[in-house]
Parts: sequence; C-alpha cells; structure tokens
Amino acid sequence: MLFFRNDYSNGAHPAILEALCRTNAELTVGYGVDGYCQKATELIRQLCATPQAEVHYIVGGTQANKTALGAFLRPWEAVITADSGHIQVHEAGAIEHNGHRLYPLPVQNGKLTAEQVHALCQLYTQDETAAAPKLVYISNTTELGTVYTRAELQALRQVCDTWDLYLYCDGARLGCALAVSDATLEDYGALCDAFTIGGTKNGLLFGEALVITNPALMPSFRRCMKQQGAMLAKGRLLGVQYCAALEDGLYLQLAQQAIDSANQLSSGLKRLQIPMLIDSPSNQLFPILPNAVIQQLQEAVSFECWSTVDDEHSCIRFVTAWHTTQEEIDELLALLSQLLS
Amino acid sequence: MLFFRNDYSNGAHPAILEALCRTNAELTVGYGVDGYCQKATELIRQLCATPQAEVHYIVGGTQANKTALGAFLRPWEAVITADSGHIQVHEAGAIEHNGHRLYPLPVQNGKLTAEQVHALCQLYTQDETAAAPKLVYISNTTELGTVYTRAELQALRQVCDTWDLYLYCDGARLGCALAVSDATLEDYGALCDAFTIGGTKNGLLFGEALVITNPALMPSFRRCMKQQGAMLAKGRLLGVQYCAALEDGLYLQLAQQAIDSANQLSSGLKRLQIPMLIDSPSNQLFPILPNAVIQQLQEAVSFECWSTVDDEHSCIRFVTAWHTTQEEIDELLALLSQLLS
Amino acid sequence: MLFFRNDYSNGAHPAILEALCRTNAELTVGYGVDGYCQKATELIRQLCATPQAEVHYIVGGTQANKTALGAFLRPWEAVITADSGHIQVHEAGAIEHNGHRLYPLPVQNGKLTAEQVHALCQLYTQDETAAAPKLVYISNTTELGTVYTRAELQALRQVCDTWDLYLYCDGARLGCALAVSDATLEDYGALCDAFTIGGTKNGLLFGEALVITNPALMPSFRRCMKQQGAMLAKGRLLGVQYCAALEDGLYLQLAQQAIDSANQLSSGLKRLQIPMLIDSPSNQLFPILPNAVIQQLQEAVSFECWSTVDDEHSCIRFVTAWHTTQEEIDELLALLSQLLS
Amino acid sequence: MLFFRNDYSNGAHPAILEALCRTNAELTVGYGVDGYCQKATELIRQLCATPQAEVHYIVGGTQANKTALGAFLRPWEAVITADSGHIQVHEAGAIEHNGHRLYPLPVQNGKLTAEQVHALCQLYTQDETAAAPKLVYISNTTELGTVYTRAELQALRQVCDTWDLYLYCDGARLGCALAVSDATLEDYGALCDAFTIGGTKNGLLFGEALVITNPALMPSFRRCMKQQGAMLAKGRLLGVQYCAALEDGLYLQLAQQAIDSANQLSSGLKRLQIPMLIDSPSNQLFPILPNAVIQQLQEAVSFECWSTVDDEHSCIRFVTAWHTTQEEIDELLALLSQLLS
Repeated sequence: MLFFRNDYSNGAHPAILEALCRTNAELTVGYGVDGYCQKATELIRQLCATPQAEVHYIVGGTQANKTALGAFLRPWEAVITADSGHIQVHEAGAIEHNGHRLYPLPVQNGKLTAEQVHALCQLYTQDETAAAPKLVYISNTTELGTVYTRAELQALRQVCDTWDLYLYCDGARLGCALAVSDATLEDYGALCDAFTIGGTKNGLLFGEALVITNPALMPSFRRCMKQQGAMLAKGRLLGVQYCAALEDGLYLQLAQQAIDSANQLSSGLKRLQIPMLIDSPSNQLFPILPNAVIQQLQEAVSFECWSTVDDEHSCIRFVTAWHTTQEEIDELLALLSQLLS
Repeated sequence: MLFFRNDYSNGAHPAILEALCRTNAELTVGYGVDGYCQKATELIRQLCATPQAEVHYIVGGTQANKTALGAFLRPWEAVITADSGHIQVHEAGAIEHNGHRLYPLPVQNGKLTAEQVHALCQLYTQDETAAAPKLVYISNTTELGTVYTRAELQALRQVCDTWDLYLYCDGARLGCALAVSDATLEDYGALCDAFTIGGTKNGLLFGEALVITNPALMPSFRRCMKQQGAMLAKGRLLGVQYCAALEDGLYLQLAQQAIDSANQLSSGLKRLQIPMLIDSPSNQLFPILPNAVIQQLQEAVSFECWSTVDDEHSCIRFVTAWHTTQEEIDELLALLSQLLS
Repeated sequence: MLFFRNDYSNGAHPAILEALCRTNAELTVGYGVDGYCQKATELIRQLCATPQAEVHYIVGGTQANKTALGAFLRPWEAVITADSGHIQVHEAGAIEHNGHRLYPLPVQNGKLTAEQVHALCQLYTQDETAAAPKLVYISNTTELGTVYTRAELQALRQVCDTWDLYLYCDGARLGCALAVSDATLEDYGALCDAFTIGGTKNGLLFGEALVITNPALMPSFRRCMKQQGAMLAKGRLLGVQYCAALEDGLYLQLAQQAIDSANQLSSGLKRLQIPMLIDSPSNQLFPILPNAVIQQLQEAVSFECWSTVDDEHSCIRFVTAWHTTQEEIDELLALLSQLLS
Repeated sequence: MLFFRNDYSNGAHPAILEALCRTNAELTVGYGVDGYCQKATELIRQLCATPQAEVHYIVGGTQANKTALGAFLRPWEAVITADSGHIQVHEAGAIEHNGHRLYPLPVQNGKLTAEQVHALCQLYTQDETAAAPKLVYISNTTELGTVYTRAELQALRQVCDTWDLYLYCDGARLGCALAVSDATLEDYGALCDAFTIGGTKNGLLFGEALVITNPALMPSFRRCMKQQGAMLAKGRLLGVQYCAALEDGLYLQLAQQAIDSANQLSSGLKRLQIPMLIDSPSNQLFPILPNAVIQQLQEAVSFECWSTVDDEHSCIRFVTAWHTTQEEIDELLALLSQLLS
C-alpha cells in the first residue's frame, strides 16, 4: 500500500539509527547532561547564532509544548494561537491541563498575523476579568503546510515587544519550514523567545530540541521537565540523534528530500487539474476530490481525510517524507489519473 | 448620581439584613452544617421538587462555577459554553485554572442551542486528540439579558442525554429568569444536573445556592469545596439569608421588582426610539446611543459601556435592580430625552 | 450550653455589624476598589509602616492562603510548613490543588525554627529531582496556640534571605499573636513578604486582609484573585468591616478580650491541677482530662476533642473569644471542679 | 572506569536493539495502536492472567506514574506512599503538579505495611478538611532494594479493599522483584488495580508498560495520555521492544542476570566484612564505608553516594545490571579489599 499518511510512521533514518547502534553499549550519565547532549547543544547554538541559548531535549511534541508553556507562564497568563494550532486542535487540552487559557484566533491558512495579536491584546490586556495574553504560539510549518516568512516572523516579534509577550514557535516541522522559507535558524534564534527543532517528523526516531533564548525563561527549566515527566532517563539517546542529524547537514537534507517529493507530487496534482484546499509550499498537500474517488483511493493508498467540502467532495491530506520515493509518487499520480478519468 | 451600572452594588435587602442582625449573636456550628442551612436546603428541595438534591452555599459566583465544574469533570473533560458565557468572558480563566478546556460557541443572543451542542459533540467526542465535551454551561438569564424558555432547556437536556453530558445552569440571575420565562424552579430541578440560585444579584448580601440533582455528582463535594477555599467558616450566614429570601417568596418578589423597573425603562427607551443591541426581556438593557450623548450621560448616570457599534455609536448597558425606583427611571428617561433632542 | 468550641461561631461584633448596616444602602463600585477598601488599606499601611504595601481583602482563610501561595509560586516550587500548619492539616490539599508540594516539618509546639528550614534547604535546594523549597509558611498564633516572638520571626527572615525564600504568615489569629507577643504589626510589615490580618476569628463577620510587602509578588494579583474565585463582588463589605475594626483600635481590643478570658480560664485549670498538652499563651487551651470526665463535660459544654493521650486520657481544646464572659468561665471551671472531684 | 552507578546508563540489550533495527523501515499507524503494541499487550495479558487488562506503553517512569495517578484520582484524593517512594523523593512534585496530596509514611526499609495504611485511613478518611486517601503507591523492588512478598502484597490488597483504595505498583524494577520474590506477574494482575512493568532499567532502550486491571480506571485513559504528553507518536517503538523482551523470556532472564551479579557482589562485600545500610536482596546494594575509602574509590568506580552515617562513614549505592560482568565484580571487590586493608 502506498503511504502518504504522515511523516512520522517510519523509524529513523539509517544514519540516525546507526549512531544509536554505535553508541548503544556506552555507559553515560543520564537525564541529558551527557557529552552527546552537550555536543548537540553546541551545534545548535552555532547554527542559531545563540551562544547563550539553553537547549533541552524532549521526546515528544505535545510534551515539549506542555513543558515549555507550563514553565514560561504564570497561572493567569494565556496563550494566543491560530485556531488551527496544534495545541488548540490536537493536544487534548494539554495546555489547559497546566491551567492556562488559550485564545484561538480564526485563520484561513494556518498563520497568525501581527494585526490579530494586536487586536486581541487591545481587548484583554487591561481587563482584569480576562486571562492575560502573554505568549504567542505559532507552528512552522503550520498544520496546513503553510510557512511564515522572515518578514512575518519579524512582525510577530514586533507585536510581542509592544505587548510584552513571548514568541514561541512549535517547530515540529521546522526542517521543512527552513527548506522553503527565507527565515533561517539564526532568525529563529534572534526572533523567538523559545522554539523547537523537531526531530520526530524529520528522520529521528523521536525527539524535539527546545531552544530557549530568553534568559528570563531559563531558570529551573530542568526541574520543570522532571516534574512534567519530560526528562528522559537515558537522555543521551536524544543527544546522539541530534548530533548525527546536525553534524553534517543531514537534518536540512532530509527536509529538502520531503519538499522535493512534495513539489513533484504537487506538480502532478496540478497537471491532473485537481483543486487544492490551500496553496501549501511544504510537505503537506490538501487536494479536494470527489468522495467516490476518495473511497476507491483508500484501497491502495494510506492517507488522512481532512474535511468535508460539499456533499460530493472532500479534502484529503497527502504527506511526503524523507523516505518518499519517485516510484511512490508516480504510482499515486497514475492511480489518481486513472480514477479521475 | 443615577445608578444603572449593575445589580450588585447595594448591600442586602432590609429583610435579609434584619435576619442577619437578628441571628448575629447565636453560636452555631460552622461550615454549612447548621440548622439555618438545613432549613434553607429543605425550602429549596421543596421549591425545586427535588427531595434528594444536595444544596451547597457558596459566597460568590465565580467560586461556585469553579468549584462545581472542578468537582464534576475529569481532567480531560471540557465545557461547552456560549462565547458570551460568564466563564468564558469574565472569570479570568478560572475553569482552565482547574485544568479544563472551554469550547466557546458563537452566539448572537447569549443563548446556546441544542443544535450547536450536537454539532460540536459530533466533531470532538470520538477524537482522542481533543478534550472530551462533557458539560454544557448556560447562564440564565444570559449575559445579554436573554432568557431560555422551558422548551429550549428541554432541548438542551435532550442533547445532553444523547451525548452523555451534564447540563449546568449558572443562575447568578436566576430570579429574573424565573420572573420572565415559563421555566420554573421545578423545571430546573428536573432538567439540570446542577444549577445555582443566585443571591448576590437579587437582594442578598452575598451567596449562591448550588443545587446538585445528579447523584453521581454528589460524593465528596464538601471536600472539594474545602480544597477550593469555597467553604465559609460561618456558613450559617448563607443559610440565614436563603431562609429569609425563600420563606415568604421574597426572592421572586425582588426579581419581579427588577423586571418591572426594566420593563418601564424599556418602554421609555422605545418611546424615545432608541435602538437596542438586542431584544432583552430581563433586567439588563442594551441601548445604542451616539457617542456624544453617552459622554454627556456619564456625568449624571453610572452605567457600563458595552461595545462599539460604529464610529459614532456605542452600545451601553443599563441594569435595574430590586431597589430601582420610579423616580430614578423617570429621571433617566427625561435626561435621555433632553440629550437626544 | 457553654461554648468553648472555637472563635468563629458568633456573627460579628456589634460595632462591625453596625457599620455594615449603616452603609448597607450605599451604591459603590464592586470588587474591592471602593472607598472603604481604600481607606482600610491606608489604615493597614500606617499600622504596618509599609506605605507601599498592597492590601487585598479575601473572604476566607483557606481562600487567602490558596490564592496567595498560588500567585507567589512557580509550579515546581514548594512550601515549608510545620506539620501542624493549617495548610498541611485543615485545607484538604488546597495548596497541592494549585500544584505545589508541601514540605511538612515535625514540630512539638506548632512553631517552625530557622534551623529546620535551613536543614531542609540544604537537602533539597540543589536537588533537581526534588520540588524546590521557596516559601516558608507559618501561622501566628499557631494551631497549638503558641506564638512566635520577634526574635524567632527575625531568625526565620534571616534563613529566608539566606536561601532566597518568601516568608508568609497566616494571621488568621494574628490579633491574639499581637496581644501576647513582642512582635508588632510593624514587625510583620518589615519581616514578612506577605501576611494576613485575620478578621473571621476576631470579631468580623468574615474577612482576611492580605498584606503584600514584597513588590515582586504584587503584579497581577487581582487577576489571580479573580481566577481563584476569591474576589468578592460587593468588595466593600470587607472594606467597611476592616475600617470599623482598625479605626479605633477595636481589632486589638477584641483580641485582648479573648486573651484575658483565656488567661482566667488557664489560671483556673491550673488551680484544678489539670495537666495541659502544651503551654499556650493565647486563646486556645489544651487540657488533658480523663475520658469519663470528657464524656460528662460534653453534655453541658461545646468543645473540640483534640487527641488521644493514653487509654484513659484525651486532650481537648477550649477556645475563648471576644464574647466569652466571666460567667461562662466561672461556670466551666465550677463544672470541671465538680466532675474531677 | 568501573560502573556501578545505576541500571539505566547502557542503551538496549542487543536483542532489543536488533528488533528495533529489523522493524525500522516499516510504516505503521502511530500512537500505540499498531500491531506490535497489540501483540505485546496479548503477551502481557497472558503472563499476568488478566485477559481483560488494558496495557498502555509510556516512555518514562515519572511520566507513567504522573499519567496513571492523574487519571485515576479526583482532585481531592490523595496518595499514600512510603517516605522513600519515588514519587515522594525523585519526581520533583509531579503528583502534586496534578493537584494531589501525598501522604508519605515513615519506613526504614522502603516497604509500606498494611497496618500503616490502615492507621492513616482511620485518621483522614472521615475528616472533610483532609485530602482523602484513595491510592496506595508502592514500588517493587523499592528504592532501597527491598522486595514485597506475595503475603505482603495480599495484606496491602486487603487493607485497600477495606478502605476502598486503589493499589498501584511502580514496577520500574519489577523484573528484579519477580526474580527474587514469590510474587508472580499473575499475583500483580490479581492484586493491583494497576502496575507497571518497567523496561528502562531492565534492558529496553526505554519504556514502561502500564497494566490496568480495574475496569473503573480504564475509560478515557488514552485521552489522558495525550493530554499529559505521554503518547509517543511512533508508538510501535514501545510495542516492538516489549515483544522482543517478553516473547522468549528475555525480560526475566535479564533481571536474573542483574540479581546474580548482585548476589556475587553482596557475598564479596560480606567476606570483606563491610557493613550494609540494609539487607537488600535485589540489584541495589548499600555498603557503609569510611569516607576516606569512598573518596579513593571514586577515582576508579562510578557509584552514587547515598547518605551520611556518621562523621567518618557514609553509605554508598552499588547497582548491578544485566550487563554487569564477572570481571567488573572481581575488580571492584579487589579494589575494595585493597583500600580497606
């Protein structure tokens, strides 16, 4: 069966796995203070041009978001997010479980604008009976495959400065964002108070590197991780993987492979004149198809049904990954061509 | 200065205050297990035709909502509310502070419909990555002065049964709702899993009586109150007031007085051809006035500015209470007439 | 029946009640920003010699502790308390409900020592797998009727400075502490980061004044109160009472009356050669009596059974209050004399 | 350097690693509903003789405890634990972060007794101002290397039935407990409401299998995992490892290897007449040594300093693991012999 369901169903890229196997028998201290984690942290600091940043390694994405936002915010402080944001849509109330209100703002393309943040702050910052807006959460790439430009990130930074907010970027798919946008890791280091460099969806077995650049958010973070159950006993497993991914540019290379596959697929869909829900430049594509076609497609392809468009059409999601092959794309397009004719 | 700002700025109705003074020197057990609380509970059980109901007395409205919803819900369970609901708009994230997601639904008139609840449950009940809808929160009268009819409450009960949800009514202004709707206390007793009979905004010095009719929600509630800081040491103060309010029909009578005043004021506003934001049958009225008029009005009248309508007009709120006098209404209408001419 | 059960079963002192009745019909803004609260705050600032202090008025003691500690601490920060402390023993896990660990330390007389605090901090401050000690909670008078001297408070302040801890004093019975110790309100203002001046147990209908002297703990406190359900709608009720209590020295006078009664009762118990659990100088006394005597006593006197001493003896608690009369004390002592002979 | 610091510093046992490598390129559904997790669950159900049990796979131990206890308890319910329990000593307040009080009971040997539980319940179950005891937490083996016998577990079950408590066993080192005690996996299945079968400390790369046998604790558990950030995206990584560990008895075999090494080391320490803090039958040993010897030992051996015994002696901890070799033990004993002579 062809697999276009998501980018986290494979294990690890062979080079990552090899690094884990190679170091398997070593005996190191636990909890992320080993040499591999230190080396990975140095690599990240260099790549982000943030020599003072703290980097913490966390197994999963929800865990990273929950731990970071729980550490950064006071009980009465709230998070501004796109209404399609992962913390709003797919984390079962993880942030509220920490006690915090989310302020979801309506977006069409997954991207929050500085204007929206500004308007919300005007409404609630002075209102003592409202939870206080304090952190802007964005994901990049977004849940709709769209990507923030450097200018957009700068505008968000500016509105955060105006209203004394933190800017946090959930980089579960940061690799793809880096591959298709003008914003570099240095930009994230300069513009965000904290952000993650996601591993799970870009070739690692698991792992999110949380980069904290704002010194005010650093104290006691390890204690917070421990309390949240987010500190891996064999912490070096994360360090080893990030070293392998970042040392020779593998991380960006894998993201580029996923993007290349997505571009090919996207061109093919265009040739078949299949309408798209949204113009996504990254590794998630959202074609709209007749329900009958979707039903037939499910017999040979694994993918996710996204949303209902009208009585006879639905939107589905195709995701490419570093391991997607030319053959898989050709086969999928051929099948679609056949089903649509 | 004329006072139409809210219905909780006076102290207590003289009869309530007299009861507090009369019993002041008594020495009773604390924490709400005294004879006055017991007697008030019997009165409420009779009025609601719920002989098995538990009744708890809590000082404030946010405290009552926070304690009740915190006791009723499991961590991953969420609350469905109108986007104008008090817990969504005026409690600074109190419910999230307990760890629970709110699902605010857009309403024009403050009232949630069974259809909206149904649609939301279809979306999230089976989705393990979403917080689970479990409780429908309504306020009656609503924050916009509108009122649920018995039929509307029955429809909500039905959708709650379909989806295994609790129905909770915040009755901070239940007196006014009872005065203008066909739904009786017996209806609330039959249709809600729990509801409050608000005292603070209807002549008591303070106090909300929380009526729990669903036996599944009763165990350990007092412990939960203690943990939430919601158990008044001198609990009898609440029992004494509810006895005084409910024994001779004072509670409904005071609500009727507020409604009568509101009706007079409403008629007067109509005669002056002042447009209203919403057609509210209860003691909150929402006239739309030119900004210049509003500014002048503020010199002689205390009221709340509600929302911006256009560049030159805003909506304000007038609230009547049991103590509003004919003279005050006449004076307000005369002043408006003069300012508008 | 003679009443020595506690000091919060009466209503309010007549002068307090009179003030509430006198101002009952006034219409003031809500939520504690009215003129009475402002005036009470000025009085408290003067009495404590803390012109910059913030004062907040909260209905109940558990609510005050829960709101304050919840606002002051980060999730991973913990509270050091005597194992007899109110938050450890009588608040149903209210502080843990906010997410915080308590570190209860064993005490015989209700009083924490600076040495104990020091030893605990040595153990846990550097240990990332432990909750971080951050706040020392004391109650004065303690739950065992003992009282901290100024020197003891200074020693606690010093150890708090050493370890960067907050010092918080639960003053539910601060009146009695002031009446029998050398520490003045000015001392509390100078030594504590925050403390309460309790009203409920010293003649008010209800109310605790929370004094915050540490500027770092002030921001957003009102929002936190709102979120915790700890902001009284008719906030002036608290301001009016504190004005009445503090303007002419009534607060200290009532505490002195309770102490005078306790001293008389204590002398009488000594004359009867009744052993005491602890040498308490304040309004809680802990006589040890044969169980048979206790049983007979219960027929005529309301009091609390405190603890089992041996198979044939138990400790009970007598509490005096501002309204305890000479006759009541004489009657109690006569009855005890008779039962013991 | 010789390594006796802990049992979670190696990677995975080669057979576990091989299974991960072999399945690495497979594409399976995520979040623990894949075929490997299903197969591991069937194996565990058979081994525990609990065909209806739910099994969930969680990456880390603190995460497993936090998620389980957070799901099982209501806000006002508390946990009874030995004062040496992992949740009390090494999780930075993780359980309190969920809102729950811990009741730590003093133990000398790491083991809670049914009598202690009984006494605590007598004290607090009826006291509305206390957090309600609801769950007994034990770890087996304990943090001091001791082990509960079947009879002791049965006694705990009985006291839990008497007081309506849950019995939860933290099995981070359950392998070693199974290897040295008469209690079998079937006993855990029959006696505990829930327990974990720890992988991290017994040859897995990471992972704890949480077995829930009480149907009342099953509903919505996956949602709770998601909310706590405890659901691994590539969930099959856990299933694959548990399959490899349980299919051919590897799990018990690795524990037996650690125990065999510990027994040899223990005999050697006895021969050297080194006193022990506690008589531990499992893979953690607690010798007491002169401080001077400890200092010299640290140059050649990695171990943990446990506690101060007197001015000149301290207790240290040696931990053996499945990978500890005869040579390492011999070398350690030779070194100790030399240092002590």
